[in-house]
Amino acid sequence: MSGTIPPGLTQLGQATALPSDPAEAVLEVVPNPHPGSLYLVRFTAPEFTSLCPITGQPDFAHLVIDYAPDAALVESKSLKLFLGSFRNHGAFHEDCTLAIAKRVVAATAPTWLRIAGYWYPRGGIPIDVFWQTGPAPAGLWLPDPGVPSYRGRG
Amino acid sequence: MSGTIPPGLTQLGQATALPSDPAEAVLEVVPNPHPGSLYLVRFTAPEFTSLCPITGQPDFAHLVIDYAPDAALVESKSLKLFLGSFRNHGAFHEDCTLAIAKRVVAATAPTWLRIAGYWYPRGGIPIDVFWQTGPAPAGLWLPDPGVPSYRGRG
Amino acid sequence: MSGTIPPGLTQLGQATALPSDPAEAVLEVVPNPHPGSLYLVRFTAPEFTSLCPITGQPDFAHLVIDYAPDAALVESKSLKLFLGSFRNHGAFHEDCTLAIAKRVVAATAPTWLRIAGYWYPRGGIPIDVFWQTGPAPAGLWLPDPGVPSYRGRG
Amino acid sequence: MSGTIPPGLTQLGQATALPSDPAEAVLEVVPNPHPGSLYLVRFTAPEFTSLCPITGQPDFAHLVIDYAPDAALVESKSLKLFLGSFRNHGAFHEDCTLAIAKRVVAATAPTWLRIAGYWYPRGGIPIDVFWQTGPAPAGLWLPDPGVPSYRGRG
Amino acid sequence: MSGTIPPGLTQLGQATALPSDPAEAVLEVVPNPHPGSLYLVRFTAPEFTSLCPITGQPDFAHLVIDYAPDAALVESKSLKLFLGSFRNHGAFHEDCTLAIAKRVVAATAPTWLRIAGYWYPRGGIPIDVFWQTGPAPAGLWLPDPGVPSYRGRG
Amino acid sequence: MSGTIPPGLTQLGQATALPSDPAEAVLEVVPNPHPGSLYLVRFTAPEFTSLCPITGQPDFAHLVIDYAPDAALVESKSLKLFLGSFRNHGAFHEDCTLAIAKRVVAATAPTWLRIAGYWYPRGGIPIDVFWQTGPAPAGLWLPDPGVPSYRGRG
Amino acid sequence: MSGTIPPGLTQLGQATALPSDPAEAVLEVVPNPHPGSLYLVRFTAPEFTSLCPITGQPDFAHLVIDYAPDAALVESKSLKLFLGSFRNHGAFHEDCTLAIAKRVVAATAPTWLRIAGYWYPRGGIPIDVFWQTGPAPAGLWLPDPGVPSYRGRG
Amino acid sequence: MSGTIPPGLTQLGQATALPSDPAEAVLEVVPNPHPGSLYLVRFTAPEFTSLCPITGQPDFAHLVIDYAPDAALVESKSLKLFLGSFRNHGAFHEDCTLAIAKRVVAATAPTWLRIAGYWYPRGGIPIDVFWQTGPAPAGLWLPDPGVPSYRGRG
Amino acid sequence: MSGTIPPGLTQLGQATALPSDPAEAVLEVVPNPHPGSLYLVRFTAPEFTSLCPITGQPDFAHLVIDYAPDAALVESKSLKLFLGSFRNHGAFHEDCTLAIAKRVVAATAPTWLRIAGYWYPRGGIPIDVFWQTGPAPAGLWLPDPGVPSYRGRG
Amino acid sequence: MSGTIPPGLTQLGQATALPSDPAEAVLEVVPNPHPGSLYLVRFTAPEFTSLCPITGQPDFAHLVIDYAPDAALVESKSLKLFLGSFRNHGAFHEDCTLAIAKRVVAATAPTWLRIAGYWYPRGGIPIDVFWQTGPAPAGLWLPDPGVPSYRGRG
Ligand SMILES: [Ca+2]
Ligand SMILES: [Ca+2]
Ligand SMILES: [Ca+2]
Ligand SMILES: [Ca+2]
Ligand SMILES: [Ca+2]
Ligand SMILES: [Ca+2]
Ligand SMILES: [Ca+2]
Ligand SMILES: [Ca+2]
Ligand SMILES: [Ca+2]
Ligand SMILES: [Ca+2]
Ligand SMILES: [Ca+2]
Ligand SMILES: [Ca+2]
Ligand SMILES: [Ca+2]
Ligand SMILES: [Ca+2]
Ligand SMILES: [Ca+2]
Ligand SMILES: [Ca+2]
Repeated sequence: MSGTIPPGLTQLGQATALPSDPAEAVLEVVPNPHPGSLYLVRFTAPEFTSLCPITGQPDFAHLVIDYAPDAALVESKSLKLFLGSFRNHGAFHEDCTLAIAKRVVAATAPTWLRIAGYWYPRGGIPIDVFWQTGPAPAGLWLPDPGVPSYRGRG
Repeated sequence: MSGTIPPGLTQLGQATALPSDPAEAVLEVVPNPHPGSLYLVRFTAPEFTSLCPITGQPDFAHLVIDYAPDAALVESKSLKLFLGSFRNHGAFHEDCTLAIAKRVVAATAPTWLRIAGYWYPRGGIPIDVFWQTGPAPAGLWLPDPGVPSYRGRG
Repeated sequence: MSGTIPPGLTQLGQATALPSDPAEAVLEVVPNPHPGSLYLVRFTAPEFTSLCPITGQPDFAHLVIDYAPDAALVESKSLKLFLGSFRNHGAFHEDCTLAIAKRVVAATAPTWLRIAGYWYPRGGIPIDVFWQTGPAPAGLWLPDPGVPSYRGRG
Repeated sequence: MSGTIPPGLTQLGQATALPSDPAEAVLEVVPNPHPGSLYLVRFTAPEFTSLCPITGQPDFAHLVIDYAPDAALVESKSLKLFLGSFRNHGAFHEDCTLAIAKRVVAATAPTWLRIAGYWYPRGGIPIDVFWQTGPAPAGLWLPDPGVPSYRGRG
Repeated sequence: MSGTIPPGLTQLGQATALPSDPAEAVLEVVPNPHPGSLYLVRFTAPEFTSLCPITGQPDFAHLVIDYAPDAALVESKSLKLFLGSFRNHGAFHEDCTLAIAKRVVAATAPTWLRIAGYWYPRGGIPIDVFWQTGPAPAGLWLPDPGVPSYRGRG
Repeated sequence: MSGTIPPGLTQLGQATALPSDPAEAVLEVVPNPHPGSLYLVRFTAPEFTSLCPITGQPDFAHLVIDYAPDAALVESKSLKLFLGSFRNHGAFHEDCTLAIAKRVVAATAPTWLRIAGYWYPRGGIPIDVFWQTGPAPAGLWLPDPGVPSYRGRG
Repeated sequence: MSGTIPPGLTQLGQATALPSDPAEAVLEVVPNPHPGSLYLVRFTAPEFTSLCPITGQPDFAHLVIDYAPDAALVESKSLKLFLGSFRNHGAFHEDCTLAIAKRVVAATAPTWLRIAGYWYPRGGIPIDVFWQTGPAPAGLWLPDPGVPSYRGRG
Repeated sequence: MSGTIPPGLTQLGQATALPSDPAEAVLEVVPNPHPGSLYLVRFTAPEFTSLCPITGQPDFAHLVIDYAPDAALVESKSLKLFLGSFRNHGAFHEDCTLAIAKRVVAATAPTWLRIAGYWYPRGGIPIDVFWQTGPAPAGLWLPDPGVPSYRGRG
Repeated sequence: MSGTIPPGLTQLGQATALPSDPAEAVLEVVPNPHPGSLYLVRFTAPEFTSLCPITGQPDFAHLVIDYAPDAALVESKSLKLFLGSFRNHGAFHEDCTLAIAKRVVAATAPTWLRIAGYWYPRGGIPIDVFWQTGPAPAGLWLPDPGVPSYRGRG
Repeated sequence: MSGTIPPGLTQLGQATALPSDPAEAVLEVVPNPHPGSLYLVRFTAPEFTSLCPITGQPDFAHLVIDYAPDAALVESKSLKLFLGSFRNHGAFHEDCTLAIAKRVVAATAPTWLRIAGYWYPRGGIPIDVFWQTGPAPAGLWLPDPGVPSYRGRG
């Protein structure tokens, strides 16, 4: 039943170390198996962490990336490693969220993409960041990410 | 009170073995009892499993199929057996989700159809796939599938 | 404080037996007290049961009926008895849901109506059915019915 | 820090008896402090009770009133007393809900208003009533009231 | 890893006392790192308190501020201190909510902004206030704030 | 299928006016059909209202009454009318909750009884009251009432 | 892969009509495959309906049956048919719940059994009934059934 | 219907300013109307705020106070004012929570008391504090406060 | 940072095929790093599937395994492969659940173990199975598994 | 209002770098302000991350630490830094969870302590770890941590 690894993939099915920085990470792609269909792929990444660029303290976020592929799909293991590469990288919340999205856009040239970054609270006030490449294409099914709002206590 | 099985159905009300592969499965149809009405039928299938085409390991998904029938309804037992036929079949998440939808389209020639595949996490990151045949027809009532987002822990 | 029963009602405030079949049930109406206002009335009926037309086994559903009345309101006790009359009646899920809606349409000639039937799972896969008489009138407030999706276990 | 009661208010900051009937209640208004801004004010009133006009038995409802003020805001204590005045008043669900809304419209002449009445079940079937004065003004932020649907038991 | 504090910021990374009043508070800004991208930043502030202008009693609110930045981002520590400055300030719910929003607009000149103020109940009836600077820009991703409705008890 | 009303019941199956005061209400009983079995009966009454004895303003509560019957069951319609009789009666929260419980004890002489009164907030702080006649009998199955805690907003 | 039906079972794997009354229904058993182990089996039956013995109107309940088997397991299809046989049977809530439990006790002679009946509201007040054969055996794992309490609306 | 204020109460039914500090606040009591009954009274106070004793920044908490009264009940308006008096008072979370409880103990000499303080997160980690005067008295019904755990985001 | 695979493990860190049957699967163990401490390890396995021994149709379950290790920990990859080995294996729900637990007991000789099997509904009635090796050891912290009960629809 | 930092604290109120390893981190304590009272302090830490000791890949966990202080409280900023020091440290889930707890025990010598580690799923199966120093002291109020179980999808 086991198949072969598609050509061009260097990380899938291999032992791979976490890239030391986003600049080191490589987002790999595979051909879209349904290139003529307008559809949405959603990645939910609750295991994101980076560093505050001012204090060096850890930041945490829950990320949701939605995209409508054109010719390429992002290979999910390379996406995981790319997200993991922010572990020792410093960036502001707004900047970091958009930078991740733009890297996926650069790698896959999708029909459309959006990202949501739900950051853990600092000073009692969490920040959420939402960006998309433009209005969603007509006819794309685009469910809400459904992440609950922050409620404090009680 | 018990009725008769509509003509042309070979699986409903019969002992039936699980088809060995999607190619073996037969999606059967029954006439739409309200052919002049634009309405939506939703199937929720939380018991879906297939195999990873690279590693042969099991994958699991929660599927929601929404369609507006034209002349035919898909017979629900044949749909169940068709979904069960993926049990020993290998396919990527994106491919598998769209392939299921396109089989139902081929069998029923619906006015409109969409599918959502909510896949269990691998590597900490679940993938969701959403596709529809085109923009929803005007006047069709189309509720959200209401599946909660993945949250990790806590 | 107790008032009088409006003329033409034969079931409200009376001891009434459950009609033996939908064909026996009578949907009664009362005049709309706000005939010039476009508004929505929602009935939620979690106590619906009918029989499978093939096997004679009981089926269960949670129904939501939304309508914008024109000259008439459906009298709620007669609606309850009408829904109860399906107790020993056999019909497929899709058929039964639309048939209920069309009876309410016939009785009240509403400006607009929709129905949602959330059927209990058979074979692990529940069926939901959604129909409306047409696009919702502009300016009508039409909240989502908010019924949770089926989740299996866990 | 304590201020003075705005002129024209007779109930705020006073000991006030519950009006004996809606006709006795007075809805008071205060000037809108942001008259040039299109915004929404939502009152949620889970403590509403009236009487059934046929049987004299108590009815209960959870009400949500949304409005976009023009020159006047409804003073909230007078609204509370107005709602409390239905305690010994008989009216059908549909009628009562719209009558409350129209009284607030008459008192405040708002840019726009809507009401939702979620009535407790009678005969196992709750009734919800939704009305608005017309389509919502473009540019008004209008969140869903978010009241859960009735689910029976289980 | 620790960086330097951007020029022009006087509060970030400093010991700072709570401003005694909103008029004393200074909302500071930093340059938008993605000025060409239309995106949304959401602040959720469940720790808001002010005083009733009539009685001097404390009021509490859960605030959600959404904005699409143009050239400037609001610096989050200065926002926190600004919100904290209402602690001994008296204002009505409707007034206070809009005043906060307009201060953020004045400080950042955003492409678009909206605010939701969910106030704790008084007299059993909570007030929510929703305002935006105008219709949302086309192409901006604007998720619902997802704050649950007030339910009383039970 | 309809049966006869058990002897001694004067309210069940009759048109009945709401008693004007708790002192006027009569709690009726029927024989326990399983007198040798230790079991629990739970009534959930979300439609309770009384008056504040100081201000005369309405109070609201969600009540849960659990009891293990001995020789008698409380007849549920008479319980409903008894609870409704508090509509124009003034009592403090603590007093009212225990007084209701003690009336049911007096009427049914149960093996054991407890009550929970979840009162709607006044001044931002709801009061809950919990009482039982003594430790629960060994071997009685006694699930938690499961009423959610009060959360304010957010 | 398909096996044979255990001896003594007359309903499993057969077309079976719903018994006309509980007295007609036969609860069948199979040998306990782990007779030396103290364990719990839980059936959740949200599809229960019977008739009111006074009015003949339908009643609905959500049932949870927990038992620790001794020598026998109840065969689940015969349990389903037994529960379905109450469809045209009249009984009070308290009586019906205990009678079901006692039939399962009689058929399986379990080490221990309990039942919970969560009945849909009548007159705004639902009744729950909880019974067990005695204190739970020491060492049995006995999770809470987790059924939400009734909340009315809001 | 309005009654008289019990003797000895100086705050109930009066215009009252917030005490400037906990030392200024007076907890008043009323006689327990059911002194021979062992019962629980729960106050839920989601509107608590104090100051950090080190930084002077605001802290927020959701408090739950449960007590079994002996001869006295705490008068709820005086409790509200007492809690409000911490508004400009500095204390650590652990200290503040226990100090509140001990003041209520001193004022009412209850049979038993416990407190839960759920503090809003600081540095990403909220602190909860739970204290009681001793083991709960046998026979007291003591439901869980049911406050959800802190979950961060996602 | 990467370490070495502990001796005796043949599956961890290796490409491994799914065992064809539970009898083929090998549960591997690693030494308990805290052998003197009484603690609980919980595995939650929502991806379980087996076959019905009578019909050969797929069954699904959500499993929770709790154990207090003595000298050995079960290695989690071998547990995953063991659970996956039921994919083409037929067993009744009660039997399957206990058999899994007893295999883990045999492999690890734990101080204590329990299992919960939450099976997807068949015939509208799900079965849950709960077993433990005996009463929980005193002093072990043993949280509820927290799996929601089955609710049908609505 | 701002106070002074208690003697012996070197991290609170200071700019502090994340310790490079748990061995570098220092857990600081402050005197218990209520040393004669048996109470519980709960820390909820949803922002925990470490590394897999075999693969070097990141692991994530949601931690809950409950303890009854004796003479010392753990200072919360030093706890935060201690937890952050696992960021580049490799340890198995079971080992890591207990090691954290034992460090807090060593630093504070509490009356009692317990820890829950809810780890994010790997291979589809999350692991939870629960440990306590012994049975909870009699009279300590010890609420459930209330973390939801893992549910996969759907
Ligand atoms: Ca939505
Ligand atoms: Ca809150
Ligand atoms: Ca995961
Ligand atoms: Ca989380
Ligand atoms: Ca089923
Ligand atoms: Ca919605
Ligand atoms: Ca699931
Ligand atoms: Ca009812
Ligand atoms: Ca139900
Ligand atoms: Ca209030
Ligand atoms: Ca509980
Ligand atoms: Ca309610
Ligand atoms: Ca924080
Ligand atoms: Ca619990
Ligand atoms: Ca239901
Ligand atoms: Ca996984």
